[in-house]
Amino acid sequence: MSRLKLSYFDFNGGRGEVARLAMSLGGVPFEDHRIPVADWPSVRNRTPFHAVPLLEVDGEVITQSNAINRFVGKLANLYPDDPLQAARCDEVMDAVEDVVTRVVATFGIEDESEKRAARETLVEGPMRLYLEKLQEMLVARGGSYFADDRLTVADLKVYVWIRSLRSGILDHVPPDLTDRVAPRLVEHCDRLSGHPGIVAYYDTH
Amino acid sequence: MSRLKLSYFDFNGGRGEVARLAMSLGGVPFEDHRIPVADWPSVRNRTPFHAVPLLEVDGEVITQSNAINRFVGKLANLYPDDPLQAARCDEVMDAVEDVVTRVVATFGIEDESEKRAARETLVEGPMRLYLEKLQEMLVARGGSYFADDRLTVADLKVYVWIRSLRSGILDHVPPDLTDRVAPRLVEHCDRLSGHPGIVAYYDTH
Repeated sequence: MSRLKLSYFDFNGGRGEVARLAMSLGGVPFEDHRIPVADWPSVRNRTPFHAVPLLEVDGEVITQSNAINRFVGKLANLYPDDPLQAARCDEVMDAVEDVVTRVVATFGIEDESEKRAARETLVEGPMRLYLEKLQEMLVARGGSYFADDRLTVADLKVYVWIRSLRSGILDHVPPDLTDRVAPRLVEHCDRLSGHPGIVAYYDTH
Repeated sequence: MSRLKLSYFDFNGGRGEVARLAMSLGGVPFEDHRIPVADWPSVRNRTPFHAVPLLEVDGEVITQSNAINRFVGKLANLYPDDPLQAARCDEVMDAVEDVVTRVVATFGIEDESEKRAARETLVEGPMRLYLEKLQEMLVARGGSYFADDRLTVADLKVYVWIRSLRSGILDHVPPDLTDRVAPRLVEHCDRLSGHPGIVAYYDTH
């Protein structure tokens, strides 16, 4: 068994949360290295692409959140073996990453009215589109899971994103956006929130 | 054998080129649906995320370029079986996608001096960083291939990107950037350009 260390910010969400959840659900032991956000400026330039999460596998650093999710997903039995099911899982993870990246790109906008305008454009454009299309995919694949008719890292990826959207943490992104645009993703999110392994995880985190 | 149809723009490059090359190198038959750039405005809104490439697998649409690359990479024997090697392959594909996405984000800037400023910031920031780090990865992994000590879709992904950078097609991105910053990636690019399968592919495309 490899020695695993995941480095990500010290909060329960964002790009590192899927890997934490996957390893916890799959009973894969790992060092949960949580970087205080205040330390980021001094840590940033020591990471390969000035970004986290990072996974160390016996000391070798792997970057890119979905590459990490896929690797730990295999260890945790939360990634499909079948190539077509794996492609469905990958597609969903990359689609979420795609839209999250566009939101993250607005974090640095300092002018508040400019930030509002950028977020409103995102909400009515890409965010609405991605929510609608992800809902269509979920429904086309049976309504419960995004791939392989079982829980995979794709479900965890969507779950962490939708939970964040609904939390209201993003200024100028209405917290009821998902409820209005993609109610089946809300059901999916609520179902995962009640998953015994996820409930147990958040009882201690 | 599934019936495969790849839809992408009618030029030899960009996000769809890796899958075309992989299937051709691996002898995987597919329909090479090339969309004239002039038709894009009318095609765009009929694609799930308003983007190409798309892969149809027996009529089912798969989106997201690296999900497609991974799927066809498995069919073409250009994707690692070993999970750690697969993670190295995935990491490289996602890193390239990450920096390409930032460049693509500047395509829509209409003001020429604003576009120049955005491109110059990219060149001296993320593009330089990604080139340096990808070169480091290549060297750390033996200098010839990015994963599995053999040709994989990660090599094709880097190859298509570096070839584009060196072609001078992007205004305000110096065509000698890679030569100055990451000569080992230039060697890698030149080696792939001379790969018999790639030579044969471009003889007919």
